[in-house]
Amino acid sequence: MSYCQTLREFGSDIWDGWHEHPFIKGIGSGNLEREKFIYWIKQDYLYLKDYARVFALAGGKARKLDQMQMFASLMDGILNTEMKLHRDYCAEFGIDTEELENLSKSPTCQAYTDFLVRTSANETVGVTVAALLPCLWGFYEIGSNLKQTGNTSSSNPYRHWIEMYSSQEFADLANWGKDLMEYFSEEAGQEEWESMKQAFLISSKYEAMFWEMAHILEEWKF
Amino acid sequence: MSYCQTLREFGSDIWDGWHEHPFIKGIGSGNLEREKFIYWIKQDYLYLKDYARVFALAGGKARKLDQMQMFASLMDGILNTEMKLHRDYCAEFGIDTEELENLSKSPTCQAYTDFLVRTSANETVGVTVAALLPCLWGFYEIGSNLKQTGNTSSSNPYRHWIEMYSSQEFADLANWGKDLMEYFSEEAGQEEWESMKQAFLISSKYEAMFWEMAHILEEWKF
Amino acid sequence: MSYCQTLREFGSDIWDGWHEHPFIKGIGSGNLEREKFIYWIKQDYLYLKDYARVFALAGGKARKLDQMQMFASLMDGILNTEMKLHRDYCAEFGIDTEELENLSKSPTCQAYTDFLVRTSANETVGVTVAALLPCLWGFYEIGSNLKQTGNTSSSNPYRHWIEMYSSQEFADLANWGKDLMEYFSEEAGQEEWESMKQAFLISSKYEAMFWEMAHILEEWKF
Amino acid sequence: MSYCQTLREFGSDIWDGWHEHPFIKGIGSGNLEREKFIYWIKQDYLYLKDYARVFALAGGKARKLDQMQMFASLMDGILNTEMKLHRDYCAEFGIDTEELENLSKSPTCQAYTDFLVRTSANETVGVTVAALLPCLWGFYEIGSNLKQTGNTSSSNPYRHWIEMYSSQEFADLANWGKDLMEYFSEEAGQEEWESMKQAFLISSKYEAMFWEMAHILEEWKF
Repeated sequence: MSYCQTLREFGSDIWDGWHEHPFIKGIGSGNLEREKFIYWIKQDYLYLKDYARVFALAGGKARKLDQMQMFASLMDGILNTEMKLHRDYCAEFGIDTEELENLSKSPTCQAYTDFLVRTSANETVGVTVAALLPCLWGFYEIGSNLKQTGNTSSSNPYRHWIEMYSSQEFADLANWGKDLMEYFSEEAGQEEWESMKQAFLISSKYEAMFWEMAHILEEWKF
Repeated sequence: MSYCQTLREFGSDIWDGWHEHPFIKGIGSGNLEREKFIYWIKQDYLYLKDYARVFALAGGKARKLDQMQMFASLMDGILNTEMKLHRDYCAEFGIDTEELENLSKSPTCQAYTDFLVRTSANETVGVTVAALLPCLWGFYEIGSNLKQTGNTSSSNPYRHWIEMYSSQEFADLANWGKDLMEYFSEEAGQEEWESMKQAFLISSKYEAMFWEMAHILEEWKF
Repeated sequence: MSYCQTLREFGSDIWDGWHEHPFIKGIGSGNLEREKFIYWIKQDYLYLKDYARVFALAGGKARKLDQMQMFASLMDGILNTEMKLHRDYCAEFGIDTEELENLSKSPTCQAYTDFLVRTSANETVGVTVAALLPCLWGFYEIGSNLKQTGNTSSSNPYRHWIEMYSSQEFADLANWGKDLMEYFSEEAGQEEWESMKQAFLISSKYEAMFWEMAHILEEWKF
Repeated sequence: MSYCQTLREFGSDIWDGWHEHPFIKGIGSGNLEREKFIYWIKQDYLYLKDYARVFALAGGKARKLDQMQMFASLMDGILNTEMKLHRDYCAEFGIDTEELENLSKSPTCQAYTDFLVRTSANETVGVTVAALLPCLWGFYEIGSNLKQTGNTSSSNPYRHWIEMYSSQEFADLANWGKDLMEYFSEEAGQEEWESMKQAFLISSKYEAMFWEMAHILEEWKF
């Protein structure tokens, strides 16, 4: 069994639960309340900025040139291409750039991004890859599952979302992440492997909490 | 008005709220459910390990020798003295060391420690001090307030807690943190000062959430 | 006087000395021994990999989106474009890629890159910019000076080198670095500004040492 | 063969050379010029401040509590005890504290400390231990060798130096470093082990260069 399969089984209750979450089912059917989707897309924009930071910090630590190259492409792609697409996509939903730039993170977005940045800044590249994997691989699993089981007709206002996360581009990204995970797992001793499993598990929980956050329109209690 | 006063006013709704929180009022009266206190003390033990890490990372970045010396004393004090006292204190409440070493962080403890470690690893020493201040100063404000308004007789099982956090030692620690905050605020430009205010506010929220966490015996939803 | 001018004057003895160094004069006249140029270009290749790392780490720390975007472009540009061009350029001088990948750093290359990575990993973005400036700005000053005073005819085997470092692209890069230096100097307090001056001075020395290294075909003594 | 033995053999030409270096032989005989010793002790003072920083950064990354505790003790010991002893020792040689605080690093001290801080800030704890080992273990090897072969009578003005580095305290410190090296080597995969060997080799070279630096009263060329 590959290391990725081991991790997938280790987190299977959480991962399986994603597919049953009302936010994901609402994307699939097209019945998700527009307000919840807008909430999600705003927080996802804030998430992306720190996500790019994580690739930067991992690329600043990676020892091998080909790893540095890929982290650089991803950092550059997120900041100089993907965030622009995101701003355009947000505009379609009536959210303008100024509003995007003045948003504050929700509690779950704050916690998840802090976990990712902490890990990339203070842990090994291998543990950072484990923390990134539930996002890299999970979005593709969700996207490709909805592509098969969901409503992909023009009646679904979220069909572009499903197209994007089930695309070949996202398959390639997920596979890159999984290949890197295999490489670093093979490299790791017992202590680092335990940290990888923990990081994978915590990010898996945060992925679930990120859907939940949008579903309940989460607010800070204090 | 000092920078610390500006920050205290900026976070006044949250700070004032701490004193009214049922967990704090329960410490003060002595009526706090033992189960909630045990929950708190276990998570506080996990918090301390990362708290020491934050002093380590700040001390590894500080430019001035006297700052490095103080961060070193605090890191050493937490890891080689305070955590031992904490284990003894936990033992009084029937929690043995093996149990302590096998605990998992609650969601709030995870989020707060990740925020602190992220900040110390990826931000300036000045912003790190701003993130530490609500703990350094806040515990003394709570302790000294309970010392005046609470039940400090032997009928209160938490009277040692009140003694500790209202002690001269904690007053000195709070004052050291406040002096450092003044120094780094004076040093900071506008961009860094905005980050300091944000870090102070986020840690202030997490302090409130940490009491709430114990009050509701918080669990992971996923 | 701008902060950049203040720094330029602070380092003027060193900067002025670059233009008189036999390696630079040899590039300008075309009389530089081929062996010394090959030594330089090999070490410059090793330098570039860590140089990209410095942009990665600075981009992972920068707070503003436009700064992150530019650091990402530079990191990506170095790793995915410039190093490839460098490999092609090396091939013209008979150095193949396998040889490049198996090189070891000279003492000066080791020291300079360690200083840059240390600074980007453990200091503020502002001090990192000060450490980068003697390379970003200095190469353009040298290139544009040689463009005016040197031999740029086809009899100079190094005329492409002069073209490159006096190009509009390098002028733009130098100006970006100088604008960033102004911004962060304005932001800095006294302690950080002192660190910026020191970082600028040390990198200025290393720039001189890097030419000297190639001129003397430097080797490790131990 | 232990990992430490493998490393010691990997660096044996360099390590064996230390014992033959005129600076070390001068310490052993007592004939070392006072001026060279004073040069060394001043640079060693500057070295210690960054050395403490390296323990701080390693302690801020270490995952296990006992490792964090030991890094904390060392950081605290260097900053709050050893540097004070160093100032007293310097005073015996007529160097006052103000002079110490205004020193600048020599080229070798700059390069070695930048390598150590870069490594601790941007590499794993295991690679950091490999970079520290030539100092931790090497000083004890030199001290205990001089204790056996050198002049330890009162006619040697450097006999306290020999006593210190051949003491049980330094034996314990060297053994702690070696035990940690075994642990992290066992944990490491091939990529990290290669980085450990390189870090060990580079620090071994810098140890030799640090003696040489004092022997030639090294100055910056630019």
